Formats: sequence, C-alpha cells, structure tokens
Amino acid sequence: MNDSYLNFVNSPFGGRLARSLGLPKPEVLRRYRADQPEFGGLVAIGAGREPQLLDALANLVASIGVITSVAHESAGLWVPLANRHGLMTGRFEPADSSSQGRLAALLFDASGIEDSTQLEPLHDFFHDTLRSLGKCGRIIVLGRPPESCATPRQWTAQRALEGLVRSLGKEARRGITANLVYVEQGAESRAEATLRFFLSPRSAYVSGQVVRIAAAGAGHEPMPGIDWQEPLAGRRAVVTGAARGIGASIASVLAAEGAHVIGIDIPAAREALDATMRQLNGTALAFDIAAPEAPAQIAAALDEQGVDIVVHNAGITRDKTIAKMTDAAWQSVIDINLCAQERIDDALLAAGILRDGGRIIGVSSISGIAGNLGQTNYATSKAGVIGRVQSMAPHLRARGITINAVAPGFIETQMTAKIPLAIREAGRRMNSMSQGGQPVDVAQTIAWLAHPGSAGVSGQVVRVCGQSLIGA
Amino acid sequence: MNDSYLNFVNSPFGGRLARSLGLPKPEVLRRYRADQPEFGGLVAIGAGREPQLLDALANLVASIGVITSVAHESAGLWVPLANRHGLMTGRFEPADSSSQGRLAALLFDASGIEDSTQLEPLHDFFHDTLRSLGKCGRIIVLGRPPESCATPRQWTAQRALEGLVRSLGKEARRGITANLVYVEQGAESRAEATLRFFLSPRSAYVSGQVVRIAAAGAGHEPMPGIDWQEPLAGRRAVVTGAARGIGASIASVLAAEGAHVIGIDIPAAREALDATMRQLNGTALAFDIAAPEAPAQIAAALDEQGVDIVVHNAGITRDKTIAKMTDAAWQSVIDINLCAQERIDDALLAAGILRDGGRIIGVSSISGIAGNLGQTNYATSKAGVIGRVQSMAPHLRARGITINAVAPGFIETQMTAKIPLAIREAGRRMNSMSQGGQPVDVAQTIAWLAHPGSAGVSGQVVRVCGQSLIGA
Repeated sequence: MNDSYLNFVNSPFGGRLARSLGLPKPEVLRRYRADQPEFGGLVAIGAGREPQLLDALANLVASIGVITSVAHESAGLWVPLANRHGLMTGRFEPADSSSQGRLAALLFDASGIEDSTQLEPLHDFFHDTLRSLGKCGRIIVLGRPPESCATPRQWTAQRALEGLVRSLGKEARRGITANLVYVEQGAESRAEATLRFFLSPRSAYVSGQVVRIAAAGAGHEPMPGIDWQEPLAGRRAVVTGAARGIGASIASVLAAEGAHVIGIDIPAAREALDATMRQLNGTALAFDIAAPEAPAQIAAALDEQGVDIVVHNAGITRDKTIAKMTDAAWQSVIDINLCAQERIDDALLAAGILRDGGRIIGVSSISGIAGNLGQTNYATSKAGVIGRVQSMAPHLRARGITINAVAPGFIETQMTAKIPLAIREAGRRMNSMSQGGQPVDVAQTIAWLAHPGSAGVSGQVVRVCGQSLIGA
Repeated sequence: MNDSYLNFVNSPFGGRLARSLGLPKPEVLRRYRADQPEFGGLVAIGAGREPQLLDALANLVASIGVITSVAHESAGLWVPLANRHGLMTGRFEPADSSSQGRLAALLFDASGIEDSTQLEPLHDFFHDTLRSLGKCGRIIVLGRPPESCATPRQWTAQRALEGLVRSLGKEARRGITANLVYVEQGAESRAEATLRFFLSPRSAYVSGQVVRIAAAGAGHEPMPGIDWQEPLAGRRAVVTGAARGIGASIASVLAAEGAHVIGIDIPAAREALDATMRQLNGTALAFDIAAPEAPAQIAAALDEQGVDIVVHNAGITRDKTIAKMTDAAWQSVIDINLCAQERIDDALLAAGILRDGGRIIGVSSISGIAGNLGQTNYATSKAGVIGRVQSMAPHLRARGITINAVAPGFIETQMTAKIPLAIREAGRRMNSMSQGGQPVDVAQTIAWLAHPGSAGVSGQVVRVCGQSLIGA
C-alpha cells in the first residue's frame, strides 16, 4: 500500500540522489482535502474559431469563485465575456522565466473547429502556455462529440483532438492531467459537474480520458439547483464490497458528500464492514452477492426507502493461465464480477427500487480493456462490465438513470502489495504519473459519476489509471 | 531495419544462452510466401450454445481446402456438419504430451451466446486446446456485434469476449495471434476474406484486434465470385509515399495480388519511385500531395480509367515537445498527414473517379490512438485519420465504397532504426510478439482491407502492432 520510492525521491536527500543519477521523480499528487480550498489560482483560456462554450466556462469560473483568468491571444472574446460575468481577468503574457508554473489550469474551447485546417490555435495556445502550468495543473480541452457533428470534416477535426490531449498528458508530467470533454449541442448547462471534477484535485489520477456530456432528452426536467457542498445529501447509496480497500473508500467519499451508505460485503468480512459503516453512520448488510437469493435480499432491505446510487465494487481475482485455470476459478470470477451485477440491477430496476434519476456505477479494469496474462476470467468479466454499461445506458435514459463504469489501473491496495516487486514496479511506473493511484482516486471518480450534476454522462467508461500506457 | 536480438536468440548458441539466462525468446514469425502453401494443418473447432456461424466456418475450411479439423466436445454439431461439407474431421482428444503443438488454429463460434452465464464453453475450449496450438498458431473467436444485439444481456456477453481474446493473445506467446471477429446477422457470407486473413501467415503481426463484418444494405448486389489467387486483378490502386519503406511494400503486395499500382511520391524521391514502379509494372507520379494543385493533378492522371483503391500512406514526423515545436512543424504534419487525405478523397469522390465498390485505406498510428510524447502534431493528425474513417464510412456505404485505417505499432523501418537504442528496444519488445513488425505486415493488412471480399468491413481501425501494450 506504500510507494516507498515515491516517498524517497521526494525527500531532500532522495531528491538530490535521484537528480544526480537521472532517476525519474514522480510528483506527490495534490489530492482533495476537506480542510483545503478545492479550487484556486490562475486559469488561462484559449479558443479556436467561433468558440461556443466560453459562456459555459465563464459560468464555471464564476461558480467556483476563487479562480482568476487570463485570456490567451487565441481567445480574444474571453475578456469582454468574463467582464460581463464580473470575473477578474487579464491577458496571458507570453512565457518568460518568471511565468513558469504560475498557472493552475489551461482550458481550451475547440467547439467551433469545423475542419482539420483550423487546428492551429491549439498549437499556439499550448505552445505558449504549457511551461507556465504549475505542478498538478489541469489541462481541459472542450469540443463537440465527433459522432454528432454535421459534416465528416468537422467530425474528423473534433476526433483529432483526442490525439492532442493524450499527447499533452504524456508530455506534461509533474502531476499534470489532460482530459477531453465533448459537450453535445444543448448540453452546455450540464457540463459543470464534469468540468469541476477535472479541474479539482479530486481527479488527481485521471488523465488522458475522453468524456461526453449529452443533452437532456425532450420532456426532461431542467437540472435542479445543485448543492455543491453536499451534493448527495438525502440520497441513499449501495456499495458492494464495502468492508475494506477501494470499497470502503467509495463508501467514505459518498458519505462525505452527504449520502447515506448501505454497505454490503460477505459474512466473513462482517466485522470490518460493521466498523466501516459505523464510522460513516451507514447501514451494514452482510451477505454474499453471488448467492441466488442476494438480489431479493437487497431489494427487501432497500424496499421502503429505495435507493439512488448503486456502486458495483465487489469483485474477485483467481489468476492462472487458461490451461491451468479450473472451471470453478473461471466461473466464480465471471459470476461475482459480472453476472451478480446484472442480477442485482435487474431486480432493483424491475421493482422500481432504484429511483428515477438514479446512478449505477460498475467497476471495470484496464484488464477488461486490454486483457491480461493469467486473467482470462477476470478480463472477460470486466469487459462484460463495459458491455453492461454501454447496453443499459439507452434503456435507462427515459428514467433519467445513468450507468457508467470506472476502470482502475494500478491502485495501491493490499491486493497489489502482494504482486512481485519487478511486476509491481512496472505497473506503478508505466503511466504518465509514474506512480500507482490510491483507492480514494477511484472513489472520487465514482462520486463524480454519482453526482446529480452528472446527468449528461452515461454509457461511459472512465479509466482511473494516471494515463497508463497499457491499453491494447 | 534489423532486429539483431531476434536473430541472435534464434541461433543455436544464442538460444541456449538466452534459455540459461532466462531472457525472452521472441519467435521468428511465419510470414506469407508465394512459394509456400498459405494454409495447412489441423484446426480445432469449439462453440458455445446454439452456434450460428458453423456453416460459414465449414464453407471457409472447404474453400481453403487443405485444412482438416477436429471438433472439441463443446462443438458436437461440427462433425455431422463438416461431413455434409465433405470435410475430413475428427474429435479433439484432451491434451496429452504428444498433442502439444499439433494444431494450426483454434476457432470458436460464440455467436449464440446470449447471456454472461453462458460463457463457460469458452473456458472449456481454450483450457483444453491452447497447449496443443503450435508456433505462430491462430486463435479466432467469432461473435455478434454487441451494439446490434437484441438485449442488454446479449450485448454484455458478446462484449465480454473482447477481454478474453485480448488476454489469450497476451498468454499464448510463441508467435500466436488472437483476434475477435463480430459477424453481423446476415453478413455470414461476407466473412470469408477476413477469416482467411486472420488464419493466414499474412496476419503475422496483427493480434488482439476486434473486427466487425456488416451485412450488405438493402438493394446491394450479392458479392461477386472472388478469385482468391489474384483478387485485385483488373483493379487500379493509388498508393501515396510509394517510393520506399512501408509505401513500397504496400505497392508491391497490391501488385502481387493483381492490381495496377499508381505510385505517388515527392519529386525528390523520383528516382526511387521510378525504380519501385518499374519493378511492379506500375505508374509513377512524382509530385507533392500537400500542394494545393495535387488533388486536381491526381484526378487528371486517373481520370480516364478511374481508380478502385486509394491508400493514403504518405506521412511525415516533426517531433518536438509542444513548447519547442514551431508553427511550421505543427502545420506541415497536420497538412500532409491529414488535410491532404481529405482534399484528395473529396476530389476523387466528387468527380466519380473512385469507382463504386472502391476502397479507401488511411494509415493512422498507435500514436493517434494513445498519444505520444513529442508528437502532439503527429498524434493529432493520426487521430484525425481515425475520425476521417469513422465519419466517411456511412456516407460511402450506398456506393459500396469502404474506408478503413491501419494503425501500425513499432515497424522496423529506416525511421525506427534512427530511434535511440533503449527506446527502440522498449518499443520493439512491449508487445505480445516481443519484436517489431515488418513493412510487409502493414502492407498485407492493407491488402486485406482492399480485397473485394472485404465489402463488409468499413469505418474500422485495425492495429498492426503485435498487440502492443501501448494503447491509452
């Protein structure tokens, strides 16, 4: 659970030694703390031709409150707009040595780019500003979803942004994240929760990701006012596998956001589960989600008050190459990691226990995306979780329920602590952060997807992997 | 251009040394040679419940001719079916030491799997057979495209196959490839060219890929009879950047399949271009595709006879981190690698020079998928190529024109020979083949996409990367 190399190279002596030997020096990532301001510092704004999302950005900056902005020359429209929103703003001065590291975030509005010949402002902006971005800074590029563009030329240019953002994530280092947010036409007012997440230290280990914000369907209610301090107040959240590790962290973050958490874990983990739930004023339910009666048990336990958020975190591994893998090892992993999620969701949905506007979040894995040696069973189950999310999203749309998955990369847990050193070090370092993530990084990503403001995010898989190289 | 480690460890002395030191021993990949039989050996057939593609598989095996098959116990239906097709067949005997390495391919029909509780036969089949698969063997799993499944449960189960196939590719080693082919309902008769490619040594460096075969639209002609020996006879193919390297290899493979090749390259490469085209009885056109007049020039040169196949291979790199990248370096890479493709296609399409039933193939890159340090310009252009393919495919469907991209990983060329040793070795070894690919691997993949039998493959990106780890 401890990355001793990270600690060592960030000590005064270790840092000097690492420098003189030319060793990598992973940054200590800035993470969210309730006792520290979440946002702050200076944001630089850039834009391509005819940017359409500057208003949404101005609303965001005004809502967050403490950020002041500077306009890059590519975003001349920003200054009068920001002034109309009553924001402090200035002009970005080309990098000189004194400007290094003074920016907290780089935001680029690429929504108006309609052709690959119009991509140049992206170069101008990041060329001028990247060196001025400080440690653990944030890069967010905003565009329009390629598949809903009017012309192939526009689709092509919008799709090209992904290559840029992923490259920036790999170049920037120093704990900086780079993400791409595609905002559908008409979804401008639904982007704030997502932009806040990617700006915040809550997304410390989420980089190189592409997220789409969809507009509300016809007849949908406008988004209700959101309490940004306690967004989950009054909501009930089920978390499976909640006794320890990532599950306990998910429960704890959801509770901190105001949710009442119902934690589920196997009877053998009852003591830890009870302790975790006591701390969070939650409810402990000790039973095996793989048992045939589990869906009915959960439904019965939730029936009266229903539930708003379901997090399918429980999962197991039984690693072996396939020639040595027993049928029981295959079947138990598929059943617990995949079939149980399907059975539980279907029971809760059929009985209406998961309320309209609800949130389902599955835990997938980079193994489910890329496959893994010795994990045919696990990777199959986790790829199935991706299929589950993609297939259910359109079905649940009419009820305002979203379904998404997170796909953790290398996360420091008791499980990864048991991996042999050389393999562990490879997994830890082969990402843009040169370090493993923490359970709280997964938990915060889930909390964003569970947020009432994330109504436009559904059917998506978000990796929590520090932009791990491993992916295909 | 030479992997001296691969050669060394496959020499008698080097092999012994590598074994005693525990070093990896990449397999010498079997590649297609005109003077050797393309197919041969024993194929094991497995199936899930109610398999729907066994008939297509029997047709394939009969058409290829020289393959004999054995049925795994999961595919009891195979024996009578194969007998009806006049095929030699038997039953697969559970692995004993004598069976090791005697199979040439493992084919599994998963098309009837409708629920994640039905995945067990996949374990049974690969558990029993994987050790019997020989060097450079082939694994192909057939399924139904998740997004066209009738229920979320079926979509989920079909999507889960991807995790299995990618894991098998990583486990199998020994030059074995593993790929997943989703055959849409009604597209059964359009799968043969794709299955042949993935069975053949032509796909030596293509692994971990997912390909979809779409059914013909209403009113489409049935697929014409195909000359499997010279499938491109009578067709005309434009290849940009054809003077040397990957481009020359593409030209040569297309010519070997019967096409008349029109090779384009810049005037500075005229001599090499002329030499290459002379050898292939092709036509050399020396001009700069980035010039504004290029589309009209190409159109004029092709006008009378038109063209059937367009391969956008020409591309450049101008690597620098973005803070050091000049505007000219950004712009020239975007323009040559992306905008020029768009201009040329649009000119050929508007004038009807690219004939109905034509093929467009763009060359993308794993940098375009995953991004790369120092390649913001290149990765943006290559991600744009993916967007181009995805956006144009539906537009071109009515004319029977397909558009696809290949995304090479580490390919041994003059360009990669200049990469510093340590980085080159990392790129070479970080894939399931533990080696770089050859230009001919890219060329053969393009020839498959250019094939008249590939009418059902469009809008797709196929990596030629030996299942490189790098991908996100």
